[in-house]
Amino acid sequence: MGSDSDLGVMKDAAIILDELGVGNEVRVISAHRTPAQAAEYAQAAEGRGLNVVIAGAGGAAHLAGVIAAFTPLPVIAVPVKTPSLQGLDSLLAMVQMPSGVPVATVAIDGAKNAGILAAQIVAVGDPEVRQQVVAYKKSLEDSVLQKAGRLERDGWENYRKS
Amino acid sequence: MGSDSDLGVMKDAAIILDELGVGNEVRVISAHRTPAQAAEYAQAAEGRGLNVVIAGAGGAAHLAGVIAAFTPLPVIAVPVKTPSLQGLDSLLAMVQMPSGVPVATVAIDGAKNAGILAAQIVAVGDPEVRQQVVAYKKSLEDSVLQKAGRLERDGWENYRKS
Amino acid sequence: MGSDSDLGVMKDAAIILDELGVGNEVRVISAHRTPAQAAEYAQAAEGRGLNVVIAGAGGAAHLAGVIAAFTPLPVIAVPVKTPSLQGLDSLLAMVQMPSGVPVATVAIDGAKNAGILAAQIVAVGDPEVRQQVVAYKKSLEDSVLQKAGRLERDGWENYRKS
Amino acid sequence: MGSDSDLGVMKDAAIILDELGVGNEVRVISAHRTPAQAAEYAQAAEGRGLNVVIAGAGGAAHLAGVIAAFTPLPVIAVPVKTPSLQGLDSLLAMVQMPSGVPVATVAIDGAKNAGILAAQIVAVGDPEVRQQVVAYKKSLEDSVLQKAGRLERDGWENYRKS
Amino acid sequence: MGSDSDLGVMKDAAIILDELGVGNEVRVISAHRTPAQAAEYAQAAEGRGLNVVIAGAGGAAHLAGVIAAFTPLPVIAVPVKTPSLQGLDSLLAMVQMPSGVPVATVAIDGAKNAGILAAQIVAVGDPEVRQQVVAYKKSLEDSVLQKAGRLERDGWENYRKS
Amino acid sequence: MGSDSDLGVMKDAAIILDELGVGNEVRVISAHRTPAQAAEYAQAAEGRGLNVVIAGAGGAAHLAGVIAAFTPLPVIAVPVKTPSLQGLDSLLAMVQMPSGVPVATVAIDGAKNAGILAAQIVAVGDPEVRQQVVAYKKSLEDSVLQKAGRLERDGWENYRKS
Amino acid sequence: MGSDSDLGVMKDAAIILDELGVGNEVRVISAHRTPAQAAEYAQAAEGRGLNVVIAGAGGAAHLAGVIAAFTPLPVIAVPVKTPSLQGLDSLLAMVQMPSGVPVATVAIDGAKNAGILAAQIVAVGDPEVRQQVVAYKKSLEDSVLQKAGRLERDGWENYRKS
Amino acid sequence: MGSDSDLGVMKDAAIILDELGVGNEVRVISAHRTPAQAAEYAQAAEGRGLNVVIAGAGGAAHLAGVIAAFTPLPVIAVPVKTPSLQGLDSLLAMVQMPSGVPVATVAIDGAKNAGILAAQIVAVGDPEVRQQVVAYKKSLEDSVLQKAGRLERDGWENYRKS
Repeated sequence: MGSDSDLGVMKDAAIILDELGVGNEVRVISAHRTPAQAAEYAQAAEGRGLNVVIAGAGGAAHLAGVIAAFTPLPVIAVPVKTPSLQGLDSLLAMVQMPSGVPVATVAIDGAKNAGILAAQIVAVGDPEVRQQVVAYKKSLEDSVLQKAGRLERDGWENYRKS
Repeated sequence: MGSDSDLGVMKDAAIILDELGVGNEVRVISAHRTPAQAAEYAQAAEGRGLNVVIAGAGGAAHLAGVIAAFTPLPVIAVPVKTPSLQGLDSLLAMVQMPSGVPVATVAIDGAKNAGILAAQIVAVGDPEVRQQVVAYKKSLEDSVLQKAGRLERDGWENYRKS
Repeated sequence: MGSDSDLGVMKDAAIILDELGVGNEVRVISAHRTPAQAAEYAQAAEGRGLNVVIAGAGGAAHLAGVIAAFTPLPVIAVPVKTPSLQGLDSLLAMVQMPSGVPVATVAIDGAKNAGILAAQIVAVGDPEVRQQVVAYKKSLEDSVLQKAGRLERDGWENYRKS
Repeated sequence: MGSDSDLGVMKDAAIILDELGVGNEVRVISAHRTPAQAAEYAQAAEGRGLNVVIAGAGGAAHLAGVIAAFTPLPVIAVPVKTPSLQGLDSLLAMVQMPSGVPVATVAIDGAKNAGILAAQIVAVGDPEVRQQVVAYKKSLEDSVLQKAGRLERDGWENYRKS
Repeated sequence: MGSDSDLGVMKDAAIILDELGVGNEVRVISAHRTPAQAAEYAQAAEGRGLNVVIAGAGGAAHLAGVIAAFTPLPVIAVPVKTPSLQGLDSLLAMVQMPSGVPVATVAIDGAKNAGILAAQIVAVGDPEVRQQVVAYKKSLEDSVLQKAGRLERDGWENYRKS
Repeated sequence: MGSDSDLGVMKDAAIILDELGVGNEVRVISAHRTPAQAAEYAQAAEGRGLNVVIAGAGGAAHLAGVIAAFTPLPVIAVPVKTPSLQGLDSLLAMVQMPSGVPVATVAIDGAKNAGILAAQIVAVGDPEVRQQVVAYKKSLEDSVLQKAGRLERDGWENYRKS
Repeated sequence: MGSDSDLGVMKDAAIILDELGVGNEVRVISAHRTPAQAAEYAQAAEGRGLNVVIAGAGGAAHLAGVIAAFTPLPVIAVPVKTPSLQGLDSLLAMVQMPSGVPVATVAIDGAKNAGILAAQIVAVGDPEVRQQVVAYKKSLEDSVLQKAGRLERDGWENYRKS
Repeated sequence: MGSDSDLGVMKDAAIILDELGVGNEVRVISAHRTPAQAAEYAQAAEGRGLNVVIAGAGGAAHLAGVIAAFTPLPVIAVPVKTPSLQGLDSLLAMVQMPSGVPVATVAIDGAKNAGILAAQIVAVGDPEVRQQVVAYKKSLEDSVLQKAGRLERDGWENYRKS
């Protein structure tokens, strides 16, 4: 992530990766304040055995693009919500990458989805993680079905979020 | 892709995947006009040995989300430019997925980048494709350096795009 | 609705439908987390004698489009406000449907209006509901006229909202 | 429609309604230039046996709201694309109606979808029109499947739009 | 104004008009809930000796346009801020009027400026009001100069808003 | 107007003012390139007997605000469409004036409406111009009614714009 | 700055300039309420030995453009966040200046960055300020590296912002 | 500039710098395709005696930010217009830089203004360039005055752009 102020959002990626049994590391690296470290981290990533990099940043959010410039690994971008433009700036600054250097962008503040997407990518080479993803999707469905059943049974007037 | 009218944009994904040596298939499947086929295609994708699905659509672009709902594979979304809102609608309709079901969104009309991202994902389980991606990034760099050198040598007044 | 978190907004549709004497049912069905249920519900709707479906969702809000894909009934879409883009994403993801598969979109968080619109549609085949709609419009007018009269009589400095 | 300059867009509603066997009439009525006629037309609509009104207009597009103010019938709004803001103005000026007076908004320049939606609404009281809508949806599906089959058989390199 | 909920914003127009010595009346009239009253009020305005009408409304804000349709008087529009789109909807629904029927739009929630503009318009036929406007502009300037002087003298570290 | 490149848009104001019998003058004055002239023109306007100033400009369109800063006269702003942001920039740069200094903003490229609004304002002190405005509104209505009648008589299939 | 209400944002420019050893003065000058003072200040700036002017304002934010019109010095614009449009209006009203009269725009509420940019500009003619800028950039990097090291050492679960 | 496709826009910076007697060099350097060269160029810039860097790029336009990360020199950003979002993406990706690392952003496609701003910055340490800037501003004014005089003399009906 580009700043420790993004931790409140970005920790959701680490949490879901832990749940899905995917090893991960959390770092603060700024494309603008520590650009040399960003380049180094990105250049070393493949050699260190990483499979995917998730980059979260806000505003003129360049971190994902800078990482993608220096590594052949897939890079996932999390646009972080900003006080003025609500993350529309972060989103456009990430998703509109030029031809040749994609980043895989998820929703504004979508760190949890970034973690799930990372697991889906890791699963391409790891059948056990694939099973975790399948199970996770099943649990999502079950959770909604359970709520839906409860709402249908009790009526919406009596429904309480669990 | 959601309509054969998207082929002009989406063929760029197929072309770059061919270049990078990644097998691929091109289909027209509409989330709204052939929803049963979309569900079937998505449910069968993993079993057929696919590693990634790229979905391109415009406007209220639901195709990527519908595919992602039915498969554990990573899904890449290409927002296609629209006549009125220029693809801002397609972009938001794709990237802002709810928690639990991510799609990896690239730039508006960014089909080529979708293909590269797909190759980067396949490369997680296939070292040969990784080499192709590395070589591709090198060729991008060389191409820019060659142009930059020519511009520096000839002066911008005499520069011609090749 | 796509999630039980939408209930706070969507219950307004049920309340006004009850007021207008139109039978209704409230369900949680997710286009992305329970896609099979969404398809089933939509396919069964006409046969079960439903006349209209109201779908409320936020972000990349696909629920209305998914329902509309599977039923010939008119489908009303309620774009739910989102934390980052305030519902502009939900609105565009719903209203910009491709040719052939319309959804009838109302204002952001406009669940009450969705209920009124549903009653207006049911009234096409039910003169009693038409009378309810006519009476409701009259009551709206009376309510504004009563406030306007009070404001004119008391002066705005002394006016209190009732 | 609000101006004869909208005819190029709005005629698509009349064409599809004719196809679906739904009687219809086409009128130019301006909310701003002929407001008395707009009020009269709307007030008379129910008594004349109309079931739905489709209103298309651009910019500060008030026609649908003005009609809806004067009739208990469901009103469908078609935001017409504008030269400067591409129809975003028309869309917001239509869809964001206040509580109590909904209009059913479709996509920018979505006159064809407005016609289909009108038919879906008429079908609530007319089983024959319902059958037409069902058949139309089937034809949409067939058309996409036929294109999809041709694309799969010929390969995208050889595909020609029909 | 279109609703008594707009009074918190719109009262600023009445206050400044009182300050500038311009007679005024405050009414609640809804373009959508009391359309007949809106038409009547607008049609009678010129005959009653009014010089300008100020219309404030939010969302699909049609009130100013409806008034302008029925009167030759200049109409000033105040777009009221909305919970979801912050008044961008109100602004576009007011300012983008079609050729032939202008409304004079001020800033979102700019009721005070609407009052000043109304006074400037009344001043075209009333030299005393012109003098009030001139004096008001002078007082604005003096107020800023006084603050600026205090800030310069005390330093920004010690400055307190008065 | 801020530049002679705005003449193609702004001449519509002069044309309609001539039609409505309102004397007018056309000037090129740039808030940014000839700021002293802008200030002088604005300061002299009232003394020269002008009643209203119309200011048209594009992009960071400050002309209307600069004029309004220096004159007690009502100032009408025409946001001119721009190549990149289509006039959204011009619109916001004009309409969002701070408290105390309003400008009366019309639609993007709405120079004709600016002329009509100017005439409506002049009419506050000039009954003859009022009659012109009334007659103009009547002619607008007649023109739409004539087109509407022709469309109804001939059918939309045979309608030709006159 | 255009109003004393901007002081909460704009003081950050003064603070960082003090830190970087760059002399500065803070003034309230309104482009719209004290236009003559704005012109005077701008015209005198170069002669008084100023090197750069920073202008902060909100809404239809003309202050930077007005200053730039009257001085050959570089002018930095700080778009101040607004209650309705969040500063998007301020940003476009500042950055979209016409050809010939640039202003150097920074982020919404980016007064600190405006101060740093001013120091970078002053440094073009002052090697000591250049050293301050270099040292500041180093301190930024150190601060991030220190946080990054602490996060890596303690783990994100135990990390506390300092 | 980030790509040779930006040359059509960016050459205007070189042309005006030549006119203003400011030495300059034109380079193609991509933040994403040749990131090492971007870092090298930026790191070497100050030592090579450069005073300012102008960076033009489109979409997720990171070039200016990447350069600013590696140099203490002031960096000017030119957001280049894009086919889908018209440069709004480029603008936000440039102007919304995080605290500590400003870039001086000009209008979309505003390369000429970037050149003028660069000259204004160079002029801080070079009185001759200051004189050139002063003369340029005078010539701008003269050009507008000459056009304004011609328009006033000939009437707008007979005016031809020169």
